[in-house]
Amino acid sequence: MKAVPVFALASALLATAFPAAAQFAKSEDAIKYRQGALFVMGQHFSRLGAMANGRAPFDAKAAAENADLVLTLSHLPWAGFVPGSDKGASTRAEPAVWTENDKFKAAAEKFQGEAVKLAAAAKTGSLDNLKAAFGPTAASCKACHDNFRK
Amino acid sequence: MKAVPVFALASALLATAFPAAAQFAKSEDAIKYRQGALFVMGQHFSRLGAMANGRAPFDAKAAAENADLVLTLSHLPWAGFVPGSDKGASTRAEPAVWTENDKFKAAAEKFQGEAVKLAAAAKTGSLDNLKAAFGPTAASCKACHDNFRK
Repeated sequence: MKAVPVFALASALLATAFPAAAQFAKSEDAIKYRQGALFVMGQHFSRLGAMANGRAPFDAKAAAENADLVLTLSHLPWAGFVPGSDKGASTRAEPAVWTENDKFKAAAEKFQGEAVKLAAAAKTGSLDNLKAAFGPTAASCKACHDNFRK
Repeated sequence: MKAVPVFALASALLATAFPAAAQFAKSEDAIKYRQGALFVMGQHFSRLGAMANGRAPFDAKAAAENADLVLTLSHLPWAGFVPGSDKGASTRAEPAVWTENDKFKAAAEKFQGEAVKLAAAAKTGSLDNLKAAFGPTAASCKACHDNFRK
């Protein structure tokens, strides 16, 4: 019989409070998952930023695609902030992610709401709409990073 | 004036052959991007595998969601295999990714095709359909890893 990692057991016990916890075999996987999702999302978000800020020509199709990816990815990273995953791999997550988890969740939800508006704005094909939605979304990223990322 | 990184210049020159190349500011970003996308995709794919192989109870809704994520993510990693990104960060990519790029692209496309079928199978809500589609998809992952990953 294969030993069940302690992390998986702890996660299973916590699964009621945080349903995604049991989905990672070990803390390292949860950390790599959230970092991967955030990095990929950041890359697509920065392409929208380049258009919104005039550093790249506006391409309505690319904007809509990137914003849709940001929206899809906006749901993912949070499941990786499993209790106990403040260690297990290199991470810049502040302890406040877990000690002030309500605030962290609220910040994540704020961003997810902005991502919905950003995707809707990008779909209109208007650069002005993209610009108007990009700022508040970027601000919601920054607010979370300022409080919960080292 | 900010200096344009050599990588970005090289990428721009190669942009006709590989349109996504110019989307990464530096080699490290391209590597982290493809690794992040592959890791997140792998996590969702493994959840389907757990259901297909009886290690987790079948949950039709979760299966459809995970397969949809795999499908969305299946399009992403390849843009990160920019020419020149065999270095710049730790990577297990074999030189063959670039020296036998046609074969690599064909392997990536084979997998993307299987991901389409997998998502369609998962949407039927039938575990048997999921099982039937999971095997060929996993085989397409393995074929690419065997030839192009250290």
